[in-house]
Amino acid sequence: MGCYVVIMAGGSGTRFWPASRADRPKQLLKLFSDKTLLEETVDRVRPVVSTERIIIVCNHRYVRQIRETITDLPPENIIAEPVGRNTAPCIALVARYLQQINPQSVMAVLPADHYIRDEDRFRKFLAAATQAAENEDLLVTLGILPQRPHTGYGYIRAGETRCSVDGIAFQTAEEFLEKPSQHVAEDFLSEGNYYWNSGMFCWKCRVIFSEIRRFLPDIAQPVDDFFSAGFALSDEEAFRDMFARLPAISIDYGVMEKSDKVVVARSDFGWNDVGSWDALEELSFPEDGNISVGGAPVMLNSRRCIVYSEGALVAGVGVEDLVIAACGDAVLVAHKNNAQDIRRLVEKLSEKNLQKYL
Amino acid sequence: MGCYVVIMAGGSGTRFWPASRADRPKQLLKLFSDKTLLEETVDRVRPVVSTERIIIVCNHRYVRQIRETITDLPPENIIAEPVGRNTAPCIALVARYLQQINPQSVMAVLPADHYIRDEDRFRKFLAAATQAAENEDLLVTLGILPQRPHTGYGYIRAGETRCSVDGIAFQTAEEFLEKPSQHVAEDFLSEGNYYWNSGMFCWKCRVIFSEIRRFLPDIAQPVDDFFSAGFALSDEEAFRDMFARLPAISIDYGVMEKSDKVVVARSDFGWNDVGSWDALEELSFPEDGNISVGGAPVMLNSRRCIVYSEGALVAGVGVEDLVIAACGDAVLVAHKNNAQDIRRLVEKLSEKNLQKYL
Repeated sequence: MGCYVVIMAGGSGTRFWPASRADRPKQLLKLFSDKTLLEETVDRVRPVVSTERIIIVCNHRYVRQIRETITDLPPENIIAEPVGRNTAPCIALVARYLQQINPQSVMAVLPADHYIRDEDRFRKFLAAATQAAENEDLLVTLGILPQRPHTGYGYIRAGETRCSVDGIAFQTAEEFLEKPSQHVAEDFLSEGNYYWNSGMFCWKCRVIFSEIRRFLPDIAQPVDDFFSAGFALSDEEAFRDMFARLPAISIDYGVMEKSDKVVVARSDFGWNDVGSWDALEELSFPEDGNISVGGAPVMLNSRRCIVYSEGALVAGVGVEDLVIAACGDAVLVAHKNNAQDIRRLVEKLSEKNLQKYL
Repeated sequence: MGCYVVIMAGGSGTRFWPASRADRPKQLLKLFSDKTLLEETVDRVRPVVSTERIIIVCNHRYVRQIRETITDLPPENIIAEPVGRNTAPCIALVARYLQQINPQSVMAVLPADHYIRDEDRFRKFLAAATQAAENEDLLVTLGILPQRPHTGYGYIRAGETRCSVDGIAFQTAEEFLEKPSQHVAEDFLSEGNYYWNSGMFCWKCRVIFSEIRRFLPDIAQPVDDFFSAGFALSDEEAFRDMFARLPAISIDYGVMEKSDKVVVARSDFGWNDVGSWDALEELSFPEDGNISVGGAPVMLNSRRCIVYSEGALVAGVGVEDLVIAACGDAVLVAHKNNAQDIRRLVEKLSEKNLQKYL
């Protein structure tokens, strides 16, 4: 596969508190195996791209940790954002940077913190998306065939098929839709042509940058000027000055919802955005049992709990459907139905001046 | 009040795991205040007896901790049992020991790890019991007027009134009954003359020792021989040799169920044997709130939980009726209805070779 893989590792993931903290965002947690989500994301593409073509974009605070974790990446392939500016500035930057290396570059953009069950199948879609992007100058996004009326995901309405690669159809993306109500999500599911927006993209650097120039000139122009003036990403001060002035805007909102080059692939490789603790159910419950990550808990008459521990022995007696996370100086016990509310909990901790736990 | 108070601090309290451990039994936990249960028990009688007349009997392993906690007790008033032998040998020993100091000694026997809500009222009953024991040569036990059909307590069936002190009636104890079924407990409650067996006693040392001699000569004789031979409790080797050979038997089973000198006072000072975590409900829930001991938890949409922490921040989201106990290297999450099963959990930990957590 001749493309670059750009892994977006900018998030903080407060909904994984107390595992996720200011100095350890979600992508650096080991949630599904003994590897961090970021390592899993890197390893997932290793069979199809060389490390020279894997680029990680992250907050400058995490560069050291990431270098220590993923040791075989060329140092210049870890790009530190001086400030967070959402996805559009970051994608513009990398697209322009890679275009300079090779004007024909193709890049796949992957979030660092998602779960993918069938990795072979994922790579098949990635290869097809790359080919569609290369052949047709399209902005490809991977849509996920919904498994249930999820209200926590954005959706994409797919129209007619624009092209097909290896039996995989790429359909016009007719509309990007925000997180729906339960009722609307159920309608989407029964309609059949609404896919989850995975935030995974594939395009020629030239094509996405030209669309950014069209729809987000305030981003494209400073980025273009920066490179045209001969600056490199290693020119820290100039990079920071330029990047900090870019408007914070998502690529979805800034480009994907507006461009007529956008197509969506109906993918089905088992995907989860790992938005909250209940995502660990992807690990599947043993019958009448509990999911555990980290240490082995001792559970008595307890079912369907997700137990995460970083050392402490967790014991459950007569409990069901709980998330229990024991992380050093903090312990969370949440009903699984309330896993989304952990963001509010983190706000409450902040209000109570308990920042030292964040 | 001219009597001695003998505080029995022999228990281990596995049902308070992970707070209670091998090196820290229940009576040394701070469950209801910033004082341990043992300290609370001592402080409860301080207004009516001098420290010279307070005696603590405990396992030899806890002597140092107890001395460090209760610093004003004469050192010889902390009696270390070389081995656990249930209550009858311990009571025989102390009764014979105090008789030697003064043949007319009266002793009250109090467990170290119970909760008492109305301490003034408790002391009123204690004073009346002492007087009844002194005047009538009775073996007095404090029965507790049941508040609900509790299946975790033993019961005493009370008969006719034998004497009365300060308006408190002392009734013949007709029968000692084991923990009943729910159905039987309900019958007891409606009958009205069945009281909870609190394990609190009051008697002349001479009278109880004579009854032990009658019903448990295998205990009375070696104890008597020990003191008659001129040995003291400080003669460690002789004490250990004698005590270890005594049969392990409870005073209830060995004497109280058999003697015709036993009377029971119908007491009502708010009592709980603190047998499991749900006993902390004695602290009363704030409306729509949670009970916390140790650190202050942060609870979101959570109700009727008991949260015990020794340092870690505990956070709850959308949970109800749980016991959450975070104690260093171990975290317990139990449904309150299953608080009794923690004994089984501790067995399971032992089976799994997790003794280091016990």
